[in-house]
Amino acid sequence: QGTRDHPPAQAALRERLLSAVVSCFKRHGAAAIDTPVLELRETLMGKYGEDTKLIYELQDQGGELLALRYDLTVPFARYLAMNKITNMKRYHVAKVYRRDNPATTRGRYREFYQCDFDIAGQFDPMIPDAECLKIVHEILSDLQLGDFVIKVNDRRILSGVFAVCGVPESKFIPACSTVDKLDKVPWEEVRSEMVGEKGLSPEAADRIGEYVQLHGGLDLIERLLQDPQLSQNKLAKEGLGDMKLLFEYLTLFGITGKISFDLSLARGLDYYTGVIFEAVLLQQENEHVEEPVSVGSVAGGGRYDGLVGMFDPKGRKVPCVGVSIGIERIFSILEQRLEASGEKLRTTETQVLVATPQKHLLPARLKLISELWDAGIKAEMLYKKDPKLLKQLQYCEDTGIPLAAIVGEQELADGVVKLRDVATREEVRM
Amino acid sequence: QGTRDHPPAQAALRERLLSAVVSCFKRHGAAAIDTPVLELRETLMGKYGEDTKLIYELQDQGGELLALRYDLTVPFARYLAMNKITNMKRYHVAKVYRRDNPATTRGRYREFYQCDFDIAGQFDPMIPDAECLKIVHEILSDLQLGDFVIKVNDRRILSGVFAVCGVPESKFIPACSTVDKLDKVPWEEVRSEMVGEKGLSPEAADRIGEYVQLHGGLDLIERLLQDPQLSQNKLAKEGLGDMKLLFEYLTLFGITGKISFDLSLARGLDYYTGVIFEAVLLQQENEHVEEPVSVGSVAGGGRYDGLVGMFDPKGRKVPCVGVSIGIERIFSILEQRLEASGEKLRTTETQVLVATPQKHLLPARLKLISELWDAGIKAEMLYKKDPKLLKQLQYCEDTGIPLAAIVGEQELADGVVKLRDVATREEVRM
Repeated sequence: QGTRDHPPAQAALRERLLSAVVSCFKRHGAAAIDTPVLELRETLMGKYGEDTKLIYELQDQGGELLALRYDLTVPFARYLAMNKITNMKRYHVAKVYRRDNPATTRGRYREFYQCDFDIAGQFDPMIPDAECLKIVHEILSDLQLGDFVIKVNDRRILSGVFAVCGVPESKFIPACSTVDKLDKVPWEEVRSEMVGEKGLSPEAADRIGEYVQLHGGLDLIERLLQDPQLSQNKLAKEGLGDMKLLFEYLTLFGITGKISFDLSLARGLDYYTGVIFEAVLLQQENEHVEEPVSVGSVAGGGRYDGLVGMFDPKGRKVPCVGVSIGIERIFSILEQRLEASGEKLRTTETQVLVATPQKHLLPARLKLISELWDAGIKAEMLYKKDPKLLKQLQYCEDTGIPLAAIVGEQELADGVVKLRDVATREEVRM
Repeated sequence: QGTRDHPPAQAALRERLLSAVVSCFKRHGAAAIDTPVLELRETLMGKYGEDTKLIYELQDQGGELLALRYDLTVPFARYLAMNKITNMKRYHVAKVYRRDNPATTRGRYREFYQCDFDIAGQFDPMIPDAECLKIVHEILSDLQLGDFVIKVNDRRILSGVFAVCGVPESKFIPACSTVDKLDKVPWEEVRSEMVGEKGLSPEAADRIGEYVQLHGGLDLIERLLQDPQLSQNKLAKEGLGDMKLLFEYLTLFGITGKISFDLSLARGLDYYTGVIFEAVLLQQENEHVEEPVSVGSVAGGGRYDGLVGMFDPKGRKVPCVGVSIGIERIFSILEQRLEASGEKLRTTETQVLVATPQKHLLPARLKLISELWDAGIKAEMLYKKDPKLLKQLQYCEDTGIPLAAIVGEQELADGVVKLRDVATREEVRM
């Protein structure tokens, strides 16, 4: 349940998509690493907040207690700490596992690919963070998924907001996860969850509401930096200062047009400590709609400066920032688009079919195809002793093989091959 | 235990190796598929004989009982049956899981990659089987792993041998797994296991010994076809007939020089029904050694005509033959060779470092690198506001970046970039 086989057409589309993402990661100088699908259970525990219950555990068959990885970020942090690496730019494309309620039509599975790019190390502020946003911008533009916006916020700004609104620190994380729902439900519902389930005072909730419904650009950052309360909060001030710097860098990258500083963005995971971001695709239903409608998150990430330290015996921290591309949802979109277009993706790369027009010529086919393979040419033949020529040409048409190399009795006698262009039916002897 | 992280240098070598294997599979017209790492437990049970105990099971957290796949063959058969596919040529490169005793220095892990190529469908005999052997030959030649031999046998020939030696049919499979040890231990030990543990009569064991120590080529096939006992056994006769045909096709492919018909080859897995094969690398310790020493199996496979039917409600069979490349052992060999050569594999593909020679030029670097990325050029910069030029050039040398694009105050004023070849130190303004 919640997993699927990828038949060749899907596997080919997926390969195309993953290779676009990987080539962007390589363009930014990242090296690949690979880590096991299995992690020690204790490595994963306490890293995902409420979602820890979604971790797949292996049966205790003797030996270590194991679980399937839930994301690629925690294994990366474990890898850095274990190898005492303090500086690394890496990408990792691999499957992760979550015992979630699958919603397969919307591209939500229990086994799915993640494509992660992360920068670990102590650097001057916001330069790596800006690069992560540039990467999201490049990938979503390259893939031509239509209009999108990248929402940006900072955990420190949210903490500052909660603090100045009178929320006790112990309730920051629960408040965070409630705020995070604002992209799906209206403020009234979020407010009532805050007051009800999360036990915030109605006054605090109302004051939070004033902040978290704000979104904008540099102007909003400037305004909040002047905000009489927020400007007095150390965390908020740091966060807003860094947000301003981030916008300067994004301006130099020329991508602020797609960036929205959005105070409602909270992100679910526990380990974020600074900038957080999420990219959503917009769908302009028709021209009369004023606000574009969001069709869901396709990339997300942020800064997690404390995670590596959790795996280091001495608690040494390695600051990290990274991005994860939501490849499954993008895949669903591309798949639907391909279906709608009626375009048929080739699932093989075969260049030529080796064919014979008469009987008893299997040896000639085997000899020729062997020569082609040895020359690096992608070639197939039918696994029949005496196939009809028509069947062989039909196979080319069905599978998109552009050429047929035909050896008949005459060609054998003349020491030539007849090369036929399947589409145009033109033939040359060579 | 028995798993490992792949740091960038290993990941890069692995990518190179896998891409060589995949390009061979594509050259032979295979399409890719992907299946989940998780399979239903019942799918895997009863397919691997004694090795079933090595399957990783997931904890029962509610819902289906799951296990990690043990190989890629059983999932492929399950996929064919589930989708009622009777005809397919596919490759699959993915990780599999075995709770075996790891022997990591010899490339034996609990999580490891398999690279499988299989041909499913009802075809004229031995044509797909010959192609599988051709593929092994191409890959091992391409990778320049040194001399190798591909041992070939047929389960039907083995069954015939057992039958004519007086082994009851119920003991064929245990006898098979004992014979399979002949490549590691001398005949005397194999014989005593047969008589002791497996309960064969000493006479039967001795007669088996005469057969399974034979190896050769077409001549041996011809001899066994004349063997007064074997020639009377239906299965052996079929197997020998097909073996002869296989050798004809392999002769046309020009690869019989590396093929040995070897009656001691049995292969462990239950599901083989016809041709089986295994490739081993040979190491000529010194020129005085007469027989080349085997350093272990690097590829194996065979025909399994009954497996798909086990997953079909009506038991409909789809004949299959396939090969699995033992990528981990090959990886270990290439890694040791790379280490010995002192060659350093680049772990990134960065073409140019964007650098500045004076302070306060971070904006210029950000603007230029953004232009390069947008033009598809693989570019990096240091994440510092004001790095020293020497440090920037040092980074190029350390990581193998061939070019530095330098923008200083003069270049900014002139609207140019100074492009420096890191190795030769030549510079051009452009």
